[in-house]
Amino acid sequence: MHDLIIIGAGPAGLTAALYAGRFRMDTLVFESLSAGGQILLSPSIDNYPGFPEGLSTDELISRFKKQAEEAGIAIESKEVLTVEQISDNFKVMTSEGNFEAKSLIIATGAMPKRLDVKGEQKFTGRGVSYCGTCDGPLFRNKEIVVIGGGDRAIEDALFLTGYASKVSIIHRRNELRASGILVEKAKRDPKIHFILESIVEEILGIDKVEAVRIKNVKTNAQTDVSCQGVFIFVGIKPNTDFLKNLLDSDDFGFIITDQEMRASKAGVFACGDCRKKSLYQVVTACGEGAAAADSAYKYIINKR
Amino acid sequence: MHDLIIIGAGPAGLTAALYAGRFRMDTLVFESLSAGGQILLSPSIDNYPGFPEGLSTDELISRFKKQAEEAGIAIESKEVLTVEQISDNFKVMTSEGNFEAKSLIIATGAMPKRLDVKGEQKFTGRGVSYCGTCDGPLFRNKEIVVIGGGDRAIEDALFLTGYASKVSIIHRRNELRASGILVEKAKRDPKIHFILESIVEEILGIDKVEAVRIKNVKTNAQTDVSCQGVFIFVGIKPNTDFLKNLLDSDDFGFIITDQEMRASKAGVFACGDCRKKSLYQVVTACGEGAAAADSAYKYIINKR
Repeated sequence: MHDLIIIGAGPAGLTAALYAGRFRMDTLVFESLSAGGQILLSPSIDNYPGFPEGLSTDELISRFKKQAEEAGIAIESKEVLTVEQISDNFKVMTSEGNFEAKSLIIATGAMPKRLDVKGEQKFTGRGVSYCGTCDGPLFRNKEIVVIGGGDRAIEDALFLTGYASKVSIIHRRNELRASGILVEKAKRDPKIHFILESIVEEILGIDKVEAVRIKNVKTNAQTDVSCQGVFIFVGIKPNTDFLKNLLDSDDFGFIITDQEMRASKAGVFACGDCRKKSLYQVVTACGEGAAAADSAYKYIINKR
Repeated sequence: MHDLIIIGAGPAGLTAALYAGRFRMDTLVFESLSAGGQILLSPSIDNYPGFPEGLSTDELISRFKKQAEEAGIAIESKEVLTVEQISDNFKVMTSEGNFEAKSLIIATGAMPKRLDVKGEQKFTGRGVSYCGTCDGPLFRNKEIVVIGGGDRAIEDALFLTGYASKVSIIHRRNELRASGILVEKAKRDPKIHFILESIVEEILGIDKVEAVRIKNVKTNAQTDVSCQGVFIFVGIKPNTDFLKNLLDSDDFGFIITDQEMRASKAGVFACGDCRKKSLYQVVTACGEGAAAADSAYKYIINKR
């Protein structure tokens, strides 16, 4: 019986591991194939505090990992299949055996939904991005397209006007889903253009993005829109299916916690992109990871 | 009229500044004499994720500052005297004039209460510490004393047994104020010793801590207790007096916010050590700073 199992080894899970190690908790950390988390969709990061010159996301994740390991925590590659509560402990079933612990930290992250069009995968990190806050500064004075019509798409489009020379919002419907005030603001912005009732069929380029091919859903007319950046905001999906409703979550599967990262079952904590919150960033994931480990430590102390 | 004024330039305020800069908000940041925050009480830090080899706290703060400045934010040395609400905006009175903004982020931190004994100031960072989580690993196999009888003192004493060879808890009363379960746990721990009904009169040493001189409050007998580390937990005090009850806070003055760092007045946000929460660490302060800036940005967008 371990004190703690941390599921997920992105910024949230690795920071939780660092703190759990310093708290001298008997801790297992399981990382699945998507180790490192959404952060690795961006090649580099310059808004993680402490690195004014920026650094590659690979490098940042390996620094997090090294630090957790130096605190005495081993990170194991094991895919978690599901989790079961057994009296007030938890059994974690993996592809390589079952493990029990008194507490759990869920840090499995989320994945942006893909458009599933040709060129998307090829150009990810070479013009295709899923995060305006992360990658906006790479597109100073460039032309970009934003795909999506929800709050996140419009917020990021507005944010991106601080860098890009032109931002075209492509949306399949005639109306945007985003809140009115955001839409009004976008309409007033001279850098923002709308291409409605249109879908992206392909992302074009040789080494990096040069254009998107769009189709008008009413007329079926095809057009190529020249651009150097493509920001895709068609939703994100938390990696929480494996929990099979063990915890309270919102309609999309994001885990609901209190301010101290406590989920709806005593002994279970959640942090990072799988948690319901308003800002999904590396630094917020790290802060939540530390808080989750602290809450798990206090829970264990009181349980012993 | 500015978009945002950030008061305080420790990890929370500087991360809020970095994000506000990236959001292209018209932002002022005021730092007072206590710039850098409580973190500077420790000479170095090895639990901020991203620096497995640790770094000096001076260096970390100057990296945070450089990054905020590169995002276009200037940090100004101005002592804030008080803050007033004027309709739905805020007027910040400083030693060098008054400034108005649509929103505020309070990131003024907290200070540990001092014992006010001889040697305390001289040995701060050279054996005297106010943070077990930060400095514990520096005292591997050393003898330390912990001063205080509340939850924080006992939690840190328990944490410190992971490193120190002996931990003596010195408390002025016969009973500890900490929760029973913590006290029981401490009593069961063979590394922990109690020196009750005693106060510390002086911290002794040449270049670094060598002992504390204590006095029994019943008998007035003086004893020198040999030790290499002195951890002082006699309370912390948030730097929120200047707000003069503008915001809801707890009995000690810590500002109460929701999960998105919104304080009790619309347009005011709080983050870091001045906020009521359970874990006071650099990485949690940074995460909260980013979230506070994001909340301020959304507030401003909806206000415009």
